[in-house]
Amino acid sequence: MEPLRLAVAGVGNNISALFQGAEYYRRADAEGITEDSFPGIRLPRVAGLGVSDLRFVAAFDVHPAKVGAAFTDAVLCPPNNYPRLDVELPEVDVVVDEGMRVADSEPGSAAFDRVVERLRQSRAEVLLYSLPTGLQKTATAYARAALAAGVAAVNCTPELMARDPELLADFERAGVPLIGDDLASQFGTSVVHRALLGLLAARGITLVSSYQLNFGGNEDFRNLRDQGASKQQSKLNALAQDGVDTSRVEVIPSAGFIGQLKDNKVAVLNLEGRGWAGTPVSLDLKLKVQDSSNASGVIIDLVRIAAAALRSGIGGFCPAAAGVLKSPAGGHGAHSPEVVAASLRALDDTARPAANAHP
Amino acid sequence: MEPLRLAVAGVGNNISALFQGAEYYRRADAEGITEDSFPGIRLPRVAGLGVSDLRFVAAFDVHPAKVGAAFTDAVLCPPNNYPRLDVELPEVDVVVDEGMRVADSEPGSAAFDRVVERLRQSRAEVLLYSLPTGLQKTATAYARAALAAGVAAVNCTPELMARDPELLADFERAGVPLIGDDLASQFGTSVVHRALLGLLAARGITLVSSYQLNFGGNEDFRNLRDQGASKQQSKLNALAQDGVDTSRVEVIPSAGFIGQLKDNKVAVLNLEGRGWAGTPVSLDLKLKVQDSSNASGVIIDLVRIAAAALRSGIGGFCPAAAGVLKSPAGGHGAHSPEVVAASLRALDDTARPAANAHP
Amino acid sequence: MEPLRLAVAGVGNNISALFQGAEYYRRADAEGITEDSFPGIRLPRVAGLGVSDLRFVAAFDVHPAKVGAAFTDAVLCPPNNYPRLDVELPEVDVVVDEGMRVADSEPGSAAFDRVVERLRQSRAEVLLYSLPTGLQKTATAYARAALAAGVAAVNCTPELMARDPELLADFERAGVPLIGDDLASQFGTSVVHRALLGLLAARGITLVSSYQLNFGGNEDFRNLRDQGASKQQSKLNALAQDGVDTSRVEVIPSAGFIGQLKDNKVAVLNLEGRGWAGTPVSLDLKLKVQDSSNASGVIIDLVRIAAAALRSGIGGFCPAAAGVLKSPAGGHGAHSPEVVAASLRALDDTARPAANAHP
Amino acid sequence: MEPLRLAVAGVGNNISALFQGAEYYRRADAEGITEDSFPGIRLPRVAGLGVSDLRFVAAFDVHPAKVGAAFTDAVLCPPNNYPRLDVELPEVDVVVDEGMRVADSEPGSAAFDRVVERLRQSRAEVLLYSLPTGLQKTATAYARAALAAGVAAVNCTPELMARDPELLADFERAGVPLIGDDLASQFGTSVVHRALLGLLAARGITLVSSYQLNFGGNEDFRNLRDQGASKQQSKLNALAQDGVDTSRVEVIPSAGFIGQLKDNKVAVLNLEGRGWAGTPVSLDLKLKVQDSSNASGVIIDLVRIAAAALRSGIGGFCPAAAGVLKSPAGGHGAHSPEVVAASLRALDDTARPAANAHP
Repeated sequence: MEPLRLAVAGVGNNISALFQGAEYYRRADAEGITEDSFPGIRLPRVAGLGVSDLRFVAAFDVHPAKVGAAFTDAVLCPPNNYPRLDVELPEVDVVVDEGMRVADSEPGSAAFDRVVERLRQSRAEVLLYSLPTGLQKTATAYARAALAAGVAAVNCTPELMARDPELLADFERAGVPLIGDDLASQFGTSVVHRALLGLLAARGITLVSSYQLNFGGNEDFRNLRDQGASKQQSKLNALAQDGVDTSRVEVIPSAGFIGQLKDNKVAVLNLEGRGWAGTPVSLDLKLKVQDSSNASGVIIDLVRIAAAALRSGIGGFCPAAAGVLKSPAGGHGAHSPEVVAASLRALDDTARPAANAHP
Repeated sequence: MEPLRLAVAGVGNNISALFQGAEYYRRADAEGITEDSFPGIRLPRVAGLGVSDLRFVAAFDVHPAKVGAAFTDAVLCPPNNYPRLDVELPEVDVVVDEGMRVADSEPGSAAFDRVVERLRQSRAEVLLYSLPTGLQKTATAYARAALAAGVAAVNCTPELMARDPELLADFERAGVPLIGDDLASQFGTSVVHRALLGLLAARGITLVSSYQLNFGGNEDFRNLRDQGASKQQSKLNALAQDGVDTSRVEVIPSAGFIGQLKDNKVAVLNLEGRGWAGTPVSLDLKLKVQDSSNASGVIIDLVRIAAAALRSGIGGFCPAAAGVLKSPAGGHGAHSPEVVAASLRALDDTARPAANAHP
Repeated sequence: MEPLRLAVAGVGNNISALFQGAEYYRRADAEGITEDSFPGIRLPRVAGLGVSDLRFVAAFDVHPAKVGAAFTDAVLCPPNNYPRLDVELPEVDVVVDEGMRVADSEPGSAAFDRVVERLRQSRAEVLLYSLPTGLQKTATAYARAALAAGVAAVNCTPELMARDPELLADFERAGVPLIGDDLASQFGTSVVHRALLGLLAARGITLVSSYQLNFGGNEDFRNLRDQGASKQQSKLNALAQDGVDTSRVEVIPSAGFIGQLKDNKVAVLNLEGRGWAGTPVSLDLKLKVQDSSNASGVIIDLVRIAAAALRSGIGGFCPAAAGVLKSPAGGHGAHSPEVVAASLRALDDTARPAANAHP
Repeated sequence: MEPLRLAVAGVGNNISALFQGAEYYRRADAEGITEDSFPGIRLPRVAGLGVSDLRFVAAFDVHPAKVGAAFTDAVLCPPNNYPRLDVELPEVDVVVDEGMRVADSEPGSAAFDRVVERLRQSRAEVLLYSLPTGLQKTATAYARAALAAGVAAVNCTPELMARDPELLADFERAGVPLIGDDLASQFGTSVVHRALLGLLAARGITLVSSYQLNFGGNEDFRNLRDQGASKQQSKLNALAQDGVDTSRVEVIPSAGFIGQLKDNKVAVLNLEGRGWAGTPVSLDLKLKVQDSSNASGVIIDLVRIAAAALRSGIGGFCPAAAGVLKSPAGGHGAHSPEVVAASLRALDDTARPAANAHP
């Protein structure tokens, strides 16, 4: 199986985790650990692609210390603070290109054309969009650039991309995949909080109040503190489900920047309920995760799904991705677990050797 | 709807919670709170029976201070330490009878015959078995006594009752319900731990280790400390599920008796996992519940199911109860969620007024 | 002993706690509970004054719903959300006056003169300054007004008052007490964090990192989120002590407004250290307190000290107050525990009946 | 400075921690880290002795796998499960001798004489007694053997040794140090709990209830579960102090054996109090430490104090050790902080080069 040719917009902690992690698993494989025993992996293979089958072919950023740097150096460059894993990193023959800024991210601008050209020349299959939250215009421009170059786009951020109907229609028409929006962390606060709220409701315990606070030491937490409101609503949406009264739930997406935590994220959760005869039920929880690992464990699935869809000629959104996105195109309602599983199987089938298909 | 005529073996905290709770909801109803808004209730109605539709008609115990006491007094008698709820308790016209002891619990013994006679005379519909853990012989004798009196039996404890094939067959033949074994707390440590372990597995996080400790201040915790081993295994069984390696999980059912907690139970849980690239995921949780409320919120469903089954002439185990039992007859595998739901609907249907059925 | 005649600037939660609490203890006394058994009291008597010996004689605020309202109503008026204690509140014959605003808080302004006049007319002994954090100019004006009226001033806030050398000198010259600045909560995050950091150092455990986050549901938390920086430094200062490297400590004074917590404050603390052979020591703590109770438990000492000093003719700062202030005049270094204790004893002595002194 | 010649009775985790730790610091020193920056060290020097100035010269145990083994192997032999630190361990030219058992621990028995002979022959200065809790007779025998050989004795366990007046008098008469009893962990649950209870009292918060549970995965936790009662009282004693009502405190010294924790110890603490107006104060804490490191960080001080006292000819108990013992000879009251500090300084003085003393 040809490795996946990946271009990235934003060379932050997520890319550091993805790049180092791919090497981590390559070494595990070399040490004789079987794929099924790799720690932290949801899907060892997607359409034949393993978790180390990545080739980084292009990278865009605007940070002065990263633009012009060798990819491997940029990945380890501050403010990135994902831990340096105990693996040797290969020299990747890629220099970080200057990416688009808000000011010059119009389709047709010099920066835009430069990105399209670079994507074509690198023969990238997938462009992973992973810039800081809040740059809607830039996000749209990268999606348009990917489309112009015939490259599948994956959007890790809350910006509108696959949920933009016009954009999605254009990708569909062109037979190019567009996967988004906003990745759901592999084991994040939302998924845990949602599980506990759902359990409370299923067991007939009445929710009195619940809160969730998140804090950490990477750039997301430095930036997020002021943009809390939209993120807050998006997090509350993620908790909504049958029988759960989210009006009793409060969420602080970024309670503060705690530098010592580096790329770790800590969440504290509290649930107060009333059981039989109104007597109290009280639950307190602390969750600590490596924030960018939590993203990369999902990104590895998204980019493989995007590449597999591209290779199969499937344009637009691919339901196989819906389970690990916060806001999939069409909403969660449009993609039942059965549809998601079937879509994943269909991708896997396309990857089976012809010999199997026609004995 | 005639209220459910209930006999109880063991007048401990669970019965205090059940009796006081029924009055609590009666008052809530009187204050105009609708059933659907009652706190802590999973099923407002089971086959037409509401949560206050209980009449205590007989009670058995061996505690010197309880035997011979008026039921209402026995319920509040130490070592019972369920909180005295802020509701007025009715005088129940029942005196606590001396129950069976291990030594005289043979069918045919004087104590056995006395219990059978009392059950018959009281016209009980359901006998709730709720004695301390570990008295297998006594449990069997109470089941046999219920059968002899034509009274449905409900077993809250880990003792074998509905899982005893011979006993179950005899109840089936006689057309008398036998519901057990071992209630699953309404919102207990096991259900929370199980949900989190399942979530971890579903998201592809590799479990490294996990522990669970429980402690509290009621008699269960005083007694349990030495009988940990069987309880430990039963708790581990409750956590087993697809993708979860329970060999990495340790459980201490009773870590200690802390008198100040009274009838509260506290659990501390820890999960350590590895995500993408082997980086750590760590979760700590503290759960505090009113132990006997947690039981009564489930008992109220079990006794209503038992009564409804008896009224409908359904003998043996009733699948409607499987979801709130730790070890249902036949095992969990025998009762899919669909079967459980259908069984519950069938009971509800029998309770519909004839007028509806034959217009 | 004459009750203390108290005027308050700011009728927020602290005043609600103080007013309701004084009644709470009055009732406890009526029920025969002795002073020494009152819950939550550090000093049952200060210079003969008990915790219920308060008479509210004047109150200033600028909130439209409070100005002009009867004192008792203003105390319970939202956004105040201190719990309504289970005590009957007396009708206090005081209407809330319009206080000074930033714009008209110059000594000599109409508002200033009105406050001075009101203080005089009410024969207040102590003016308690308890407005939201950040109004330095207003704080100074209230202090000047108190001085003009010969009323002792107590400053609960981080604003400069007793640390303003000119202001302090003027109070000293006039023989009027000035007690400040910034109350240390009775059992707050700082005092707990400080104790644990000190203990770690004393035992030879090397501090690696530590953080502290605070959140709650009263107005302080709504306002504080943007003014974190100065508060952050002041909190770090409170943790500084021999052997503690505060460069390894991070503090978020307000991690977020969680409305459901109402007037409760929650803090989460973490300490990571290294012990023998560099092996890890890890401590996590959650503290939940009633925020305004935590303040009032200290205010009750401060106002009694201020009144006692005034009655004894002691102007300026009174060392007896140093132990419960975050930033006492002269700094903590100027007031050893011995000096504080001696000052408190001296106040107590002045209150002894002459009969005792000269039998 | 001659290294300290140390004999050990019991080759468990504490000795593993002590031995590996000494090498850890030796390497740190070789890497240019100054003593004052060593992590986890309370006293870099005691009477001139550094933390690596240890020579293990004799060792006693009864575990079949340890007796006859090379010291270095025995230290790493299961059930010992202290982590293998990342340092190279030297081959120590000592074979573990068979120690005394309860049956043959009379002074004059063959086993006793063998121990005395071995101590003499090894020219040990200090015998560290560190066997499992509960072997009073064996503890006394080891103390008597040390005395017979003129070797200072240090008792890490709760057994009576320095508190045995007759034994202590005999050591005093012989001019041989006897240091004990029962080491206080460097940063253990008791010291943290005590600090928080003391703080609560000092601030005037009324204690309502408090509990402490400890659990872990080393042999202590496997053994302790049944011997809880005496340990429980000893832990409660450790919490007693002015203003603290220990009748409201409950302690479970070993809540359970959790193998996955290995040599780590976890404690959970809860304090519930009442502040101003009876409103609640609630504190929850989790502490995780490397159990044997916590002991060795104190043992290193105790053995250096014992050796320094021996070298100075000071027999009996040495007050310098009182601060890190749970039950020092004479009780804590007999050794004020000033006395302890003076005793430590006196030891240090004896170690100053003669050139300084006689210029």
